Amino acid sequence: MATYNAPLADIEFVIKNLIRFEDVASLPAFVDYEMDQDFVVSVLEEAGKFASGVIAPNRENGDRIGSQMVDGKVVLAPNYTENFKQMGEAGWYSISMPVEYGGQGLPELINTCANEMWTAADMAFSLWPLLSAGAALAIEAHASEELKNTYLPNMLNGVWSGTMNLTEPQSGSDLATIKTKAVPEGDAYRISGQKIYITYGDHEGTENVIHLVLARIEGAPEGTGGISLFIVPKFLVNADGTLGERNDLHCVSIEHKMGIHGSPTCVMQYGDNGGALGYLVGQENRGLMAMFTMMNEARLKVGLQGLGISEAAYQQALYYAKERVQGKSAEGGKAAIIKHPDVKRMLMTMKSLNEAARALAIVESIGIDIANHHTDKEVASKAQKRVDLMIPIIKAWITEIGQEVTSLGVQIHGGMGYIEETGVAPLYRDMRITAIYEGTNGIQAADLVGRKVGGDAGETMFSIIAEMEATHVALAESDSLAAKKAHEIMGHAIGGLKFTTQTVLEKLKDAPQQALLASFPYLMQCGYVMGGWHMARSLLAAESLLAAGDSNPALQAKVHSARFYIEHVLPRAHGLANSVVNSDDDILTMADEMF
Amino acid sequence: MATYNAPLADIEFVIKNLIRFEDVASLPAFVDYEMDQDFVVSVLEEAGKFASGVIAPNRENGDRIGSQMVDGKVVLAPNYTENFKQMGEAGWYSISMPVEYGGQGLPELINTCANEMWTAADMAFSLWPLLSAGAALAIEAHASEELKNTYLPNMLNGVWSGTMNLTEPQSGSDLATIKTKAVPEGDAYRISGQKIYITYGDHEGTENVIHLVLARIEGAPEGTGGISLFIVPKFLVNADGTLGERNDLHCVSIEHKMGIHGSPTCVMQYGDNGGALGYLVGQENRGLMAMFTMMNEARLKVGLQGLGISEAAYQQALYYAKERVQGKSAEGGKAAIIKHPDVKRMLMTMKSLNEAARALAIVESIGIDIANHHTDKEVASKAQKRVDLMIPIIKAWITEIGQEVTSLGVQIHGGMGYIEETGVAPLYRDMRITAIYEGTNGIQAADLVGRKVGGDAGETMFSIIAEMEATHVALAESDSLAAKKAHEIMGHAIGGLKFTTQTVLEKLKDAPQQALLASFPYLMQCGYVMGGWHMARSLLAAESLLAAGDSNPALQAKVHSARFYIEHVLPRAHGLANSVVNSDDDILTMADEMF
Repeated sequence: MATYNAPLADIEFVIKNLIRFEDVASLPAFVDYEMDQDFVVSVLEEAGKFASGVIAPNRENGDRIGSQMVDGKVVLAPNYTENFKQMGEAGWYSISMPVEYGGQGLPELINTCANEMWTAADMAFSLWPLLSAGAALAIEAHASEELKNTYLPNMLNGVWSGTMNLTEPQSGSDLATIKTKAVPEGDAYRISGQKIYITYGDHEGTENVIHLVLARIEGAPEGTGGISLFIVPKFLVNADGTLGERNDLHCVSIEHKMGIHGSPTCVMQYGDNGGALGYLVGQENRGLMAMFTMMNEARLKVGLQGLGISEAAYQQALYYAKERVQGKSAEGGKAAIIKHPDVKRMLMTMKSLNEAARALAIVESIGIDIANHHTDKEVASKAQKRVDLMIPIIKAWITEIGQEVTSLGVQIHGGMGYIEETGVAPLYRDMRITAIYEGTNGIQAADLVGRKVGGDAGETMFSIIAEMEATHVALAESDSLAAKKAHEIMGHAIGGLKFTTQTVLEKLKDAPQQALLASFPYLMQCGYVMGGWHMARSLLAAESLLAAGDSNPALQAKVHSARFYIEHVLPRAHGLANSVVNSDDDILTMADEMF
Repeated sequence: MATYNAPLADIEFVIKNLIRFEDVASLPAFVDYEMDQDFVVSVLEEAGKFASGVIAPNRENGDRIGSQMVDGKVVLAPNYTENFKQMGEAGWYSISMPVEYGGQGLPELINTCANEMWTAADMAFSLWPLLSAGAALAIEAHASEELKNTYLPNMLNGVWSGTMNLTEPQSGSDLATIKTKAVPEGDAYRISGQKIYITYGDHEGTENVIHLVLARIEGAPEGTGGISLFIVPKFLVNADGTLGERNDLHCVSIEHKMGIHGSPTCVMQYGDNGGALGYLVGQENRGLMAMFTMMNEARLKVGLQGLGISEAAYQQALYYAKERVQGKSAEGGKAAIIKHPDVKRMLMTMKSLNEAARALAIVESIGIDIANHHTDKEVASKAQKRVDLMIPIIKAWITEIGQEVTSLGVQIHGGMGYIEETGVAPLYRDMRITAIYEGTNGIQAADLVGRKVGGDAGETMFSIIAEMEATHVALAESDSLAAKKAHEIMGHAIGGLKFTTQTVLEKLKDAPQQALLASFPYLMQCGYVMGGWHMARSLLAAESLLAAGDSNPALQAKVHSARFYIEHVLPRAHGLANSVVNSDDDILTMADEMF
C-alpha cells in the first residue's frame, strides 16, 4: 500500500501564487507572528509528518476493527485513544483557536490545509478532533466566560472531547421539528430526549465528553425560533474543575455504516432518570443561530474531507499504476499501466480535480480569517458575504467530485480495487458520507441559490465573476498556446455562468420551485467554473515562473494539470448550464404516481 | 424496505414500441412458437415473480452473512443452494439455450430482460446461474458432441454449476501472459496452475462444479495464440454419467470484497498432486477465440447487472421519498420529500437513465438473435457487426451511469442511506464491481475505438448515426413542444457524435495513442447520445399513442422521463465531445514523475 505524503508542494504553490498572503499576515490577530509563506509551509510540514507518521498507519485498524459497542460501552479502534491525546497535546486541532483558551491562535488558512491532511490520513479518526474543535468553537463564540473557562482548555488539549447533537429521528435536514426538552432548574436545565447520528457520541477515550445539544425550553415557540443550545457534559464538572457525578445520559447503540467504521455514530439518550443537567449557551431560543455561526467552518471542513480522501486515493492509484505491469506500451515492451493512455486519463482527472479543489478551498479560507479579524467592518462584512456564498459550493462540489476521484482510484486498481485489503475500497466507502452529512449536497444547493445568490440579488456572485473575467483577459495576453486555448474555453464557461446566474435570479422571483430544481446543477456548474478559474490562474503563474527561469519541476507539472482540467474537465460545465436553463415546471407539476 | 417489482410496464413499452418484434419472432429457430409480444411479457411476468418472490427476499442474507470459507470449505449464504436448484429446475437460466441440451430455446431478447431481474433481486446470487449459463454456452459452441452430452444437461438444470477461469495473478486485463500448464495424457490433459477471481469457484451447493480453464499446452507458442480452453470438472464424470473421483483442484481462499458478499470469489489451485484432468474444448491454441465468442453475451449481461441494481436502487429511493416526511411543501404543509424539487431531480435522473439503459440493451439484444439464427448470412453478419460495436457501449456506459444512479439512491435516503440496514448501501457496494470485471470499462473503450469503430472505418457506427438522423427528422415533424425541443438538442448531440467519430478515426490513423486517450469519453458520449435517441423514439411513440386515445398512464410518464433525459442528461454529451477533441499529446508525452 502507498504511504500517504502530505501534498506540501501543491499547497506551497497555492499559498505563494494564488492568494495575497499579506491579507492574512497583516491582520492584527496575526501581525505579531511576522508570518511569511515559508513559516506556513514549515508548520504544515510538521502537520504532514503527524498525519503520515501517527494517524495514517492506523487507518486500516480503524476500518477493519472499527469502533464497537461491547457490554454497553463504546470501545474505540486500537490506538485511537493514544493518538487523540497526542494530537491534542501537540495542539494540532486547536490551530486556529484563541491562545487564551489554549489554542494556537493561527489563521484558519493553516487549519484548512492541515484538515485535508488529517482526513487523508484516516477520516474516521479525524472526525473526533474535528467535532471536538467544532464544539469548542461554538462555546468560544457564544458561551459565558465562566463556561468557556470551565470547558475550553480541556476540550482543546485532548483531555476531553466534544460532540454536536442536532438530529432526531423526525428531524434531519429540517431542524424545526426538534423535540428534545429543556426544563429550567436553578441556573441550569434538565434535558431529556433522543439524538441520533452523534459522531463520537460516547467512548472511554477521553476523561469527559462535552455534548452540545439543541433542545426546546419548555414553553418555547414552535419551529426554529424556539430552539436553544446547551452544554451537557457526560460527567458534571465541579467548581474546582475536577470531575463529579455521571450525568443522566447514555449511548443506546451505534450504527452499522458503509464506511468511517472507526468513528462511532451513536444514538444518545438524555434524561431517562429525571433529566441530564445542561447549561445554556448564548441566548434562549437562539440556539440555531449559534450553530449557524460555526456552520461555515464545519462545511468547509467537510469539503476538505472530500479533498483529503481524494488525495489519498490519488496517491494509492498512482503508486499502483507505477507498480502494476500489464499489457504493452506503445513501443511494444512490457508496461506499467501508467503507460496506458486511459490510465493516464484517469490519473490526470483525479490529480487535476484535486488541485482545483485544493486551490478553491485555500483561496476562500482566507476570507474566514478576514471576516473574523479585520478591523474595517466593511471589509470584514464583505469577506463574510463571500465566505457565505462560497461555502456551499466548496462543501458540495468537492464532495461530489470526490466521489468520482475515489471511484477512479478504485478503477485504476482493476480487480484489486474491489478487494478490501488493497485499501482503496475503504476510501470509496468512507467518502460516500461526505455528500450527505453537515447538510446534504441538495441542501447546500438550495442554500446557495436561495439564501446566498438570491440574498443579495447576485451581487457577490457577479463580483466573483468579474474577477474571473480579469483572469480571462490575462489569458488572452499570454502568448502560450495553452493559455490561448484556456482563454477560449474559460470564455464559454464564464459566459455560461453569467447567464445561468441571471436565469436563477429570475426563477427565484417568478418560479422559486424552478430555482430549487435548478439549484444542484447550478452549484456544480459554479464549482467546475471556479475550479477552472483557479487552474487558469495556476497556468499563468506557473508559465510565468518557468519563463523567469524557475526550474521547480512542480511548475511544469502544474501546466499539465491545468491544461488537462481546462480542456477535459471544465467542458462539463456546459451540460450543467443546460440543465439549469431547462429547469421548468414539467416534473414539478407531475403527479407522484408518474415516478 | 421496498419490495422489488420487475419493471414489466417499461419492458412492455420497449418491446411493443422500440423494436421490430417480427425480426425475432420470424427467425426459423423461433417461428414454431408463434410468439407475440404478449407471450414475451407473460414469460417475463413469471420471471419477475421468481425474482421478487424467491431470490430477492434472500438478498440481505447474501450481503450480511455472505459466503464464507469454513474449515477449508466454501459455505454459501443461507438459501442460496435451494434457490439455485429451484432456478435450474424451472429453466430460468437456460432460457436461450438449445432445447436438445435441456435449454428453453427462447430468444436472447427474453433472456436479456430476465437477466435485469435476477440482478435486481440479488446480484451476488445471480452470478451463480450467470456463470453456469456462460460456461454452458462456451461448451455448447465449441466442445465435441460427447463433451456436450456429458456436461450440458446437468449444467442447465441446476444439478451442476459452471465457472470461468481466466485471470492469474500476473494476467488480468492482458491474458497473453497466462502460465497455467496443460500436459497431454491420452485423450485428456493434466492441468496445473493458479487462477484467481473465480466466481463461485468452489462450494457444496451443487453436486459438481464444471470449470472452464484457460491454459497453455506444453510447447504452445507464447502470447494469446498459445492458449487453449479446457473443461476441468471438480469430480470426474464416469462413462455412465455418475460422479467418480475428486479431481486434483481446490479452492485456496476466498476474497474479502467491498460487495457481492454472497458470491464466493475464489483462488483456485490446479494440479498440486500431479495435475487435474482436463478435456480440450475446441481446437488447440484457440481457447481465447472460444472465450471471445461468448464474451458479447457475458458483457451484455454485465451491462444488465448495472441496470438491474440501478432499478432496485430507484425503487428503494422512490419508496423512501414517498414515506419520509421532512421540511415543507411549496404550499407550506408537511411534505414527503418527493415533494422537494431537488429530490424530484434525483429521482428523475435515476428513472430516465434506467429507462434509456433498458431501451438500449433490449433494442440491441435482438441483434444477437438475428446474428445467431438468421438464415441469410449477410443479414446475420451485419447484425453481428452491430452487436460487436454496441456491446462495449452497453457494458461500460450502463455500468458507469449505474454508479451514479445507485449513488443517487443512497443520497435520497440522507443519513439513512449510509446505514447498512437500510439496504441501499449494499447496492452501491455491489454495483462498483460491474465497471471492473468482464473487461474494465477502459478496456471496453479501447475495444470500441480500436477494434469496432476502427475495424470497419466507422461504417457500422455511421449507419447507426444515420438511423438517429431519421429519428431527428421525425422529431421535427411532430408538433409537440417537447419533440421540437428534443429535435434541437438531439441535433447538437448527433452532430457532435458524427464529428467525434470522424476525429477518432483520424486519430487512429495518425496518432493511435491519442485515440486511446479519447476512447473513454467517446464511449460515454456514444452511450448518452444513443440513450437520447431511444428516449426520443419513446417520446414520439408515447405521444402518438396518447394522441390516438390510449389512456395507459405509463405513456404520460414516459413523456416526462423522455423530456427529462433529453433536456437534463443528454447535454452532458457536449463536455465529453470536447474531451475527445482535446485529446492530444500533452499528457501522453508527459514524464511519469509529473504525476
